[in-house]
Amino acid sequence: MKYIDLRSDTVTEPTQRMREAMMDAIVGDDVYEDDPTMKELEEYAANLVGKEAALFVPSGTFANQLAIFTWCNRGDEVILPHDCHVVMHEVGAASVIAGVQLRSMPAINGQMNPQMVKEAIREDDIHYPETGLICMENAYSDGTVLPLEHMQEIYAIAKAHDIPVHLDGARVFNAATALKVDAKDILRYTDSVMFCLSKGLCAPVGSILAGSKEFIAKARKKRKLLGGGMRQVGMLGAAGLIALKEMRLRLIEDHDNAKYLAEELDKIQGIEVIKDALDINMVFFKITDERLEAQLTEENFFKNGIKINPAEGGLMRFVCHYYINKSDIDKVLGVINEMRRY
Amino acid sequence: MKYIDLRSDTVTEPTQRMREAMMDAIVGDDVYEDDPTMKELEEYAANLVGKEAALFVPSGTFANQLAIFTWCNRGDEVILPHDCHVVMHEVGAASVIAGVQLRSMPAINGQMNPQMVKEAIREDDIHYPETGLICMENAYSDGTVLPLEHMQEIYAIAKAHDIPVHLDGARVFNAATALKVDAKDILRYTDSVMFCLSKGLCAPVGSILAGSKEFIAKARKKRKLLGGGMRQVGMLGAAGLIALKEMRLRLIEDHDNAKYLAEELDKIQGIEVIKDALDINMVFFKITDERLEAQLTEENFFKNGIKINPAEGGLMRFVCHYYINKSDIDKVLGVINEMRRY
Amino acid sequence: MKYIDLRSDTVTEPTQRMREAMMDAIVGDDVYEDDPTMKELEEYAANLVGKEAALFVPSGTFANQLAIFTWCNRGDEVILPHDCHVVMHEVGAASVIAGVQLRSMPAINGQMNPQMVKEAIREDDIHYPETGLICMENAYSDGTVLPLEHMQEIYAIAKAHDIPVHLDGARVFNAATALKVDAKDILRYTDSVMFCLSKGLCAPVGSILAGSKEFIAKARKKRKLLGGGMRQVGMLGAAGLIALKEMRLRLIEDHDNAKYLAEELDKIQGIEVIKDALDINMVFFKITDERLEAQLTEENFFKNGIKINPAEGGLMRFVCHYYINKSDIDKVLGVINEMRRY
Amino acid sequence: MKYIDLRSDTVTEPTQRMREAMMDAIVGDDVYEDDPTMKELEEYAANLVGKEAALFVPSGTFANQLAIFTWCNRGDEVILPHDCHVVMHEVGAASVIAGVQLRSMPAINGQMNPQMVKEAIREDDIHYPETGLICMENAYSDGTVLPLEHMQEIYAIAKAHDIPVHLDGARVFNAATALKVDAKDILRYTDSVMFCLSKGLCAPVGSILAGSKEFIAKARKKRKLLGGGMRQVGMLGAAGLIALKEMRLRLIEDHDNAKYLAEELDKIQGIEVIKDALDINMVFFKITDERLEAQLTEENFFKNGIKINPAEGGLMRFVCHYYINKSDIDKVLGVINEMRRY
Repeated sequence: MKYIDLRSDTVTEPTQRMREAMMDAIVGDDVYEDDPTMKELEEYAANLVGKEAALFVPSGTFANQLAIFTWCNRGDEVILPHDCHVVMHEVGAASVIAGVQLRSMPAINGQMNPQMVKEAIREDDIHYPETGLICMENAYSDGTVLPLEHMQEIYAIAKAHDIPVHLDGARVFNAATALKVDAKDILRYTDSVMFCLSKGLCAPVGSILAGSKEFIAKARKKRKLLGGGMRQVGMLGAAGLIALKEMRLRLIEDHDNAKYLAEELDKIQGIEVIKDALDINMVFFKITDERLEAQLTEENFFKNGIKINPAEGGLMRFVCHYYINKSDIDKVLGVINEMRRY
Repeated sequence: MKYIDLRSDTVTEPTQRMREAMMDAIVGDDVYEDDPTMKELEEYAANLVGKEAALFVPSGTFANQLAIFTWCNRGDEVILPHDCHVVMHEVGAASVIAGVQLRSMPAINGQMNPQMVKEAIREDDIHYPETGLICMENAYSDGTVLPLEHMQEIYAIAKAHDIPVHLDGARVFNAATALKVDAKDILRYTDSVMFCLSKGLCAPVGSILAGSKEFIAKARKKRKLLGGGMRQVGMLGAAGLIALKEMRLRLIEDHDNAKYLAEELDKIQGIEVIKDALDINMVFFKITDERLEAQLTEENFFKNGIKINPAEGGLMRFVCHYYINKSDIDKVLGVINEMRRY
Repeated sequence: MKYIDLRSDTVTEPTQRMREAMMDAIVGDDVYEDDPTMKELEEYAANLVGKEAALFVPSGTFANQLAIFTWCNRGDEVILPHDCHVVMHEVGAASVIAGVQLRSMPAINGQMNPQMVKEAIREDDIHYPETGLICMENAYSDGTVLPLEHMQEIYAIAKAHDIPVHLDGARVFNAATALKVDAKDILRYTDSVMFCLSKGLCAPVGSILAGSKEFIAKARKKRKLLGGGMRQVGMLGAAGLIALKEMRLRLIEDHDNAKYLAEELDKIQGIEVIKDALDINMVFFKITDERLEAQLTEENFFKNGIKINPAEGGLMRFVCHYYINKSDIDKVLGVINEMRRY
Repeated sequence: MKYIDLRSDTVTEPTQRMREAMMDAIVGDDVYEDDPTMKELEEYAANLVGKEAALFVPSGTFANQLAIFTWCNRGDEVILPHDCHVVMHEVGAASVIAGVQLRSMPAINGQMNPQMVKEAIREDDIHYPETGLICMENAYSDGTVLPLEHMQEIYAIAKAHDIPVHLDGARVFNAATALKVDAKDILRYTDSVMFCLSKGLCAPVGSILAGSKEFIAKARKKRKLLGGGMRQVGMLGAAGLIALKEMRLRLIEDHDNAKYLAEELDKIQGIEVIKDALDINMVFFKITDERLEAQLTEENFFKNGIKINPAEGGLMRFVCHYYINKSDIDKVLGVINEMRRY
């Protein structure tokens, strides 16, 4: 039985085209930098995002942490939004791997107050750590997108203080799709960027860290230290190329589906969709009816062939992706309407 | 020439009584636990604050960092107010020594929102670090004091989740004086506490970390790792004993002097005292008159025999202590009034 | 043109059977523990090596470092041979990731002196770190194999002091093949083991860490922290299953080829094979003739379709694997003999 | 009752001259760099050892670890003798504070093989950490002294590879006394040096780290991070000045006493003095007679007013210092001869 899996876009399996590309991939030992498919992917990726160089790593968390580890000296301070992925969902890794202090800022939809960012940058004083990095995240994990103007403003502050900027762009192509710009237009306001080949792009494994040649050369060595030096990894690179060349172009479908899902969900009594968080492929909503809430459990959905995550902080999240089409959405809506009757 | 030093209570020199006590101190090699004066100090200190055991360390920063290092596993998360001393003034040490992630909370006068603290405590999830510690600071470095009820509430939340609590009590005896309670009454709402023998208590060097016997035994070994195992340190212990036995009892004078200074300063046109931050020995004020501001410089005060620190975040801070008496304050006020005339 | 690649067995590409298995693999999101192929691989692997549980990671370095990170508290001391892979070829990662002190022991062919190991274990003293782990490596990277008796003796010492033992078994199936035992017979003298699916077993990417259920559960979370949580990683798992089920059984061919290569090389004047380091698929030799040495360069071999690594510490290393057959070896020998004539 | 304390020279109490100097010391807040006595000590110390600048810290371990932390980037490798103080007696701190990998070398009386040191220096390779520092220790804790030629040879290797050198000179003035040279003559072969004011020099607390101005400026900030920023620390500085100016000049007496003790001990049947480890103020010996060994216990000595440490690795150590004179030694010898009769 095929489930309708609304938990995340991370559940996307590799497509048939990806499997075929993997079948035929020409590979080599990438620790010796001998893997032509991986080289092609890294060059394609760098070019796509307007950076000099790129590096393949096993996951988005790996890429974010590698970026922090590469930019910062141990003991440096990193300015970032208080509820971003690095703070909330990376197991405290920045305190272990890079050994940095997180200076988290209040933020609304991932947007820090520029004045507060400016004030948080440390002067030279025997009591202060150095500010080593500013991080942003776009698209934000609450379903919204940072406007270009915001990124530009934060970036300008960083540059005025000679501080590098990293972007957690796990879903940066969703952001570009939502903003109706090229990813490069977003990424001119960051010195390094991480983006995922899995998630909405459907590659089975892997993320890309991109930046200057010098930055990526340093990151390559630190990737080895962290155990991310892999061998015939062009097998994964072959899927990644299709992710970037083909799957990237269809993300608009997921956004449209999410909007449709949101509209229909919001019509259901007892459900309140968060309407200002509908920029990408995610729908966040509250259940305002207690009896309905008691019905909308993981177990009940699962019985109906639907996988969901439980609410987090009072919010449910449904995520659209390549394996969710309009008729799947209709089925989900039908199941919920059915549940309302109990 | 003797300066009137308003920069901080850290500038207090050891008193004549302390010098005499050091002259006569009976000491031994404290790494062998052979120093009777240090033993006496640690026992006296533990008893005074209602904890089983205590340990002498070279500074308040050392004690706070040792507490975090002793309570937490590397990679744990520590919940604390966003502008407390550990976050702002300890050089990012928690990311280096303990290797923990700081989860800083919005706070007003050092008081975190209890509901937000509760929500910040991590559940068991593969994406989350463990919450290893909650820190408070009393007196707070903005000149206020945490009410006992606040500490009790945070402590109850911590205990409900089996999380230890550490108090940065650098000026805990000022807090006790302000709250008109015994230090023990404050410290029942914390599992470990750091307090300074220097600052208002006038000892030349040293702070105390106190807690359970088991905690202090672990901290003692980690103190050695951090290079804090000292030899005939009873020389400093002798001064510390006078700090705790005698100097502690006169802190009320500094508070009274600070109140007097605040009242008089506030009468001066162009100066606005922060009136809700007058709990201890510190006076914070803004200069609202630009011409006056141009006069009230470090250099101009220095020429008049007064040492001050420059404004931080738009606020001036004058600190009262053993070496500032009422006539010193009158002199300071006179100098400012003189400056107003230019 | 197909090169004869003697640099390492890490250069082995995935076999056609592996590519087909990847093509057909049934996968899921392994961070949700939803990937049936990865589950099958981890269960198969655990069973094969006689441990309760196993975990897939991106590389051998990742697995070794994850083992140290999981077994040790920060600041612990790890006893291990002075020239093992963890000390020599893992970029100093143990000081970064686990934050441990390496206590390296003199060793001959990877064998530490048991008496010295015993003496290196730390007693309880305020000056000493704790001994957190003892590491061995089998097969050893110098081409030899640790006898079972040696492993047993070190393991007994560790157990007498309640210290865990980790085995870097990157080529443990080569060791088992050489010792003519089952891998389980080796691994009863270790609490955790890392082995590679790449190298002689030809999988494109990945290594396995195996141990008790409790150990692997802890390692799984720390793998996430280190960015090793991957999504539809069963794509790699499918290749790994063939590595363990099929490729493992043919390692004897590589050993036989290595012995043949060693015998023939040793007949060549000016070449001296290290005869007591021929346990597995590697041949180490010195070039004793200067004129021949000047000929046997990477460039000259490469012109003849052969890839080699330069000498390290005066020793050349040729490595046999699935893609090196007897006629390849004859070609290599022919090329060397040709070079001798210049 | 005054005990004869042979355990270590760390047990030396401050002299009456020191106590008087402390009584009269002019001090200030050294975090503000306002302490004239501490400034005088740091300048005097720098000058004495031929370095540009010096910094006071609470202990020898603190100074060694601060040196490693200041010289190295995290993850660097440090080359040093396998049984030196940093490896053996500093609680594994280098893995915690600096986060470096110790590459310990075989050594005889603290002397590493220069060829092995040269080979241990890392080339540029993706598998290797960087070599960040080479450490020596003089006098060595086994009672011997490194010859100048050895230090010169190691230093030349380091400089040829642009690697800094640190000397653990806890007892460098003992070394200078033994080598009949000025401390500066030893310290020209090191970029930074730590030496203790306590131990044979009798100051109650403190050690000095000395090096270039740039190095000490960096170390000063890292000292603050580690909690070593102290306030009116000139109280200790006053004692340190007497240690360096006066007590340093009398170390020859301790060496002479140690030689006398060694000669007389060696005459006692059942005692075998290690004759090639008599360079400084320490006497190492074995007890070859089992019946005598059973008598020479801590408890039995203690009953006779003598404090000793138990044997370590089969060796007893007696240490001479300011509070051990010739008649004390005669008393000790008498007690041992008495014990032989049982």
